[in-house]
Parts: sequence; C-alpha cells; structure tokens
Amino acid sequence: MLHLLEFVGVAVFAVSGALAAGRKKLDFLGVVVIATVTAIGGGTLRDLLLDRHPVFWIAQPGYLYVTLAAALLTVPYTRRFRAPDRSLAYADALGLALFTISGSQIAERLGLSAIIVVLMGTLTGVAGGVLRDVLTAEIPLILRRGRFYATAAIAGIVLYLLLELVIDRTAAALGGMFAIAALRIAAIHWDLTLPVYSVPDEPQNPPPP
Amino acid sequence: MLHLLEFVGVAVFAVSGALAAGRKKLDFLGVVVIATVTAIGGGTLRDLLLDRHPVFWIAQPGYLYVTLAAALLTVPYTRRFRAPDRSLAYADALGLALFTISGSQIAERLGLSAIIVVLMGTLTGVAGGVLRDVLTAEIPLILRRGRFYATAAIAGIVLYLLLELVIDRTAAALGGMFAIAALRIAAIHWDLTLPVYSVPDEPQNPPPP
Amino acid sequence: MLHLLEFVGVAVFAVSGALAAGRKKLDFLGVVVIATVTAIGGGTLRDLLLDRHPVFWIAQPGYLYVTLAAALLTVPYTRRFRAPDRSLAYADALGLALFTISGSQIAERLGLSAIIVVLMGTLTGVAGGVLRDVLTAEIPLILRRGRFYATAAIAGIVLYLLLELVIDRTAAALGGMFAIAALRIAAIHWDLTLPVYSVPDEPQNPPPP
Repeated sequence: MLHLLEFVGVAVFAVSGALAAGRKKLDFLGVVVIATVTAIGGGTLRDLLLDRHPVFWIAQPGYLYVTLAAALLTVPYTRRFRAPDRSLAYADALGLALFTISGSQIAERLGLSAIIVVLMGTLTGVAGGVLRDVLTAEIPLILRRGRFYATAAIAGIVLYLLLELVIDRTAAALGGMFAIAALRIAAIHWDLTLPVYSVPDEPQNPPPP
Repeated sequence: MLHLLEFVGVAVFAVSGALAAGRKKLDFLGVVVIATVTAIGGGTLRDLLLDRHPVFWIAQPGYLYVTLAAALLTVPYTRRFRAPDRSLAYADALGLALFTISGSQIAERLGLSAIIVVLMGTLTGVAGGVLRDVLTAEIPLILRRGRFYATAAIAGIVLYLLLELVIDRTAAALGGMFAIAALRIAAIHWDLTLPVYSVPDEPQNPPPP
Repeated sequence: MLHLLEFVGVAVFAVSGALAAGRKKLDFLGVVVIATVTAIGGGTLRDLLLDRHPVFWIAQPGYLYVTLAAALLTVPYTRRFRAPDRSLAYADALGLALFTISGSQIAERLGLSAIIVVLMGTLTGVAGGVLRDVLTAEIPLILRRGRFYATAAIAGIVLYLLLELVIDRTAAALGGMFAIAALRIAAIHWDLTLPVYSVPDEPQNPPPP
C-alpha cells in the first residue's frame, strides 16, 4: 500500500513540477529536473532526516522512471490539448495528500512521537514543492498566501492519527488523504487563507544600495 | 550545558524567524514554518553532515515545542507592544553566539580537525538564517552587506579554541559566545563591513529575455 | 585518480564561485562562502544521499584548504589582471567535467544501477553551481536558458559508460570529461539551447498583492 501510494504521488508531483516548469518556459531538461525535484524532494529529505538508507529512489529506481515518464508525457499532452484549468493545483493537491500520509506512516512505524510524525508527514508532502519554487525563483507562495497548503497537510495527519484509534489503518489513511485533498481544493476555490502576521519594517535599516 | 545552550538558541532563533516572517507578512503557519526552519536548520544540517542520528530534534522533540511556543508568543507580543527596535538583530546575535559555540563543541568532541570545527560551528550558527532568507526570498544579505555575520562566528570560534588552551572549557565557551554577540552588535551599530570584492560583468553575456 | 580529479574540480569550482561572488559584489567572507559552497556542494549532496560518511571534506580537510587558497588567490589575480573573458564559464566547464565523471564513478563502484549512476554524476557536477545561484539570488539560469549544462553532464556520463565497455576505465573517464567540457564550451560559443516547453499562465490566479 505504502509503495503504491508513493508511486502515484511521485507521478502526480512530477506532472505538477513539469507544468510549473512549463509556466516558467524552461527547456526540456529543466522540465525533467524540476519534475524530479518536485517528485522526490520531500521523500528524500524525509529519508535523510530519518537516516533511512538507501534513500527510496536509490533502493527502487523505478520511481525515477515514473518521474521521467510523467514529465515527458506532460509535454506532448499540454501541447496537443490545452492544460486543463487549475490542473496544476489539482495534481498538486493529490500529490500532497498521498505524500503527506505516506510520510507520516513511515515516521509512525519507526515509533516516533506524534509531533515528529506530523512534522515528517508535512515535510514529505510540502518540501518537494518548496524546492520547486526555490529553484524556479518563485517565493514559496505556499508560505505567503497560505491557502491552507501545509495547514491541509497538518489537519489531514491529525485526522489520520485520530481515526486510527477507532478504525482500520488503511481506512484512516484514506480518510486523512481525502481531508487533505478536499481542504486544499476548497481553499483554492474559495480563496481561504489564514490570518496574516505583520511586523512593520525597521526604519533604521538602510535600504540596500 | 550543551543541551541548555541549544534550547536557548532554538528559542531566540525561533523569535528571530517569527519576526522575519512578520516583516514579510506571512500567514500564521508561515510564521511557524519560518521560525522552525530558522531555529533548527543549522543544527539539522550539522547533524546530517556529521552523521549524528537521530537528528537533535528527533532525539529530543522538546526543541520543537520550544520553537512552537517561541513563535506563537512572538505574535501576540508584537501585536500588543511595538517590536523593540532592532529586536530581530539582537535576538539573532544571541542565537548566533549560542549555536556557533555549541556546534563547534560538538565537532570538537568528535575529534575533528580545527578547520572542520570552525566550519561546523559557523554552519550551525549561520545556516538556519540563510535558509530563512532563501525561503522568504531575501537574498542572504549576510553575504552581501556582510556586517560581520559569519565573520563574527568564525572569530568567536577561534577565540574559543585559543582560550580553551589556557582556561576552563566552559569559561572559554562563554568568552567565545560573548565575542560573537559583541562583534555582531557592534557591526550593526557602527555599520562595520568587510571590504567588497567586485568583478565587472561580462559584456558578452546577453541579457535574459 | 579519483582523489586528484576531485582536488582539481574543487579548485576550479572555487574559482568559479569566487568570480560569481565578485560579480555580485560580495564582501571577502561572502566570496569564501560562495566559493566553498560551489566547490563542495555537489559532492556533499552526493555523499549524504549515498550515506558515505565521513563526507569527503570531513574525511580529507585538504579540500577545504584548496578551496580557501583558490578563492583567496582569485581576488588579487582579478584585481591585478582583468578577469579573462568568459573565464568563469571555462572554469565552470572544467569543474563540471571533473565532478560529473568522478561522481558517477563513485556511484558505479557502489554497484548502483545505470540511472542512479547518471543521476549521481549529474548531481555531483551541477548541484554546487545551483546552490551558488540560489545563494546569490540568481535563478539557476542553467535551468532556464539551458545551454547544455546538465545536458552536457548527462551526455558525458552516457559516453563514459559506453566507452568503458570497449576501452580502459581511465581512458573512458577522460573521454567522458572531454565530451562534457567540449559540449559545454560549444554551447556557450554558439548559444546552443534545448527546445523550450511553455505552458500559458492560468488567468484565474489572482496576482500577488
């Protein structure tokens, strides 16, 4: 189950990365690089932090082939058909849901405490997209305009951990994933955001030359 | 002693991260994310590079609670009271001092050579702030305008290593930390900078389209 | 052979980093930081991903001295003599060739599959420059305008793996390196680029406030 989830998550995140690269007008190799970083970035960081070796895509290079195929199929698809509106956001929401829950299950099986399970799940889901944004010189808008990105991940993991107390683990995982994708898509549609925290700039700071 | 230092360092760096997030008008979750990255980024990179597992905040999730509490207390505090002028810079100077020395002590106890001790200490102190700047799309001004940021860290570690030859390790650590914080605050007050190195741009490079 | 390659690669990447820092008018310490990140970033990421500990420059701090010396010699050199035109690009092409092949040889000796060998080699060659660009707030132009950067690395590794089937490993490595440097320099001279993939922006996305 975990492996299958990660395969699907890798594929949809690769599509989301390829679309983001297309919006930035990168060349074909840039498309593959951004798709790969988006797809395997979060899981790689999780594996490094948890000292899980070999890293998941070294243990199972199949993930890289899936990434490559997903990125390369996205290009002709969007050339022939117009990219469906908000397609990037939907692919991203699905990848977020899959990676977040699979990441938290991995931390859970290592017997780590609840806060680490939440953090690892969130990081697995979010880090690939943050790396994609940093590399394409987008300020991780995730952080700025919010729209319940990491919030959705955290809420879904908490729901999963709670559901697990009463129902079967697989059903709980599906519930958590559904909550993440639903929250995220709802946030996009109705422009939901978290309150903003604002501190005025310090006047003493001289402007950069 | 080391643990206590790291706890205080984590707290002040979390405050510095939360203030930086407030300056960028991030939402509440963005505040927590930036505070966390700032607070644990340097130590995490150090642990990964030195292959120390579990990473300090996985071994001791208390660090995460401290980060969360520090970030969440910063928000109402600066809403009720005006953020004291240069508060971010002072919190940052203290965090830099604490993390730099604790990081170099960890490398020292592993019996690594002096240049690695200096590098690991500097990296522990500086990397969290660099990550904060990259994520909030600030060019790490540390690098550009200098103001003795990493310079203060390096000078403090060298002083610590020298003092250790003649006095007790704890006293040497305090001396090193004091030097770092003092140098950094002096650099802010008197706008001290290092000389700048400048190479003209190559005219052959076509401007980006 | 591997060690010697890595020493030369570290030195030329340090020069390339120092020149990039000079173009950005960083202070002296910024020059050292960027030179170091550029020089050891790719190899460090490779070692972390492959769980090779101690990381190459912790095992052999000589790399750090070479980096430091190369960065510090670049400053007076370009002050006295004008930086030769395109010197940064040439130093970079050489470093790319050396690091890419040495990185793929390391993955090869661990018995990893071909796709991982290609990826590790490319990553070893490219990641230092990407980190340099992220830290100096250059969008990794590598990705955008292409000019066969990672493409050259990948082509060189594939050539190396093929040559190895028919000739001696050292000769194959030299062939691969030559191909990388030649492709990269040719791409700069004749402005070769890969086709660009472009997806129109979604009109629904409100502009950032």
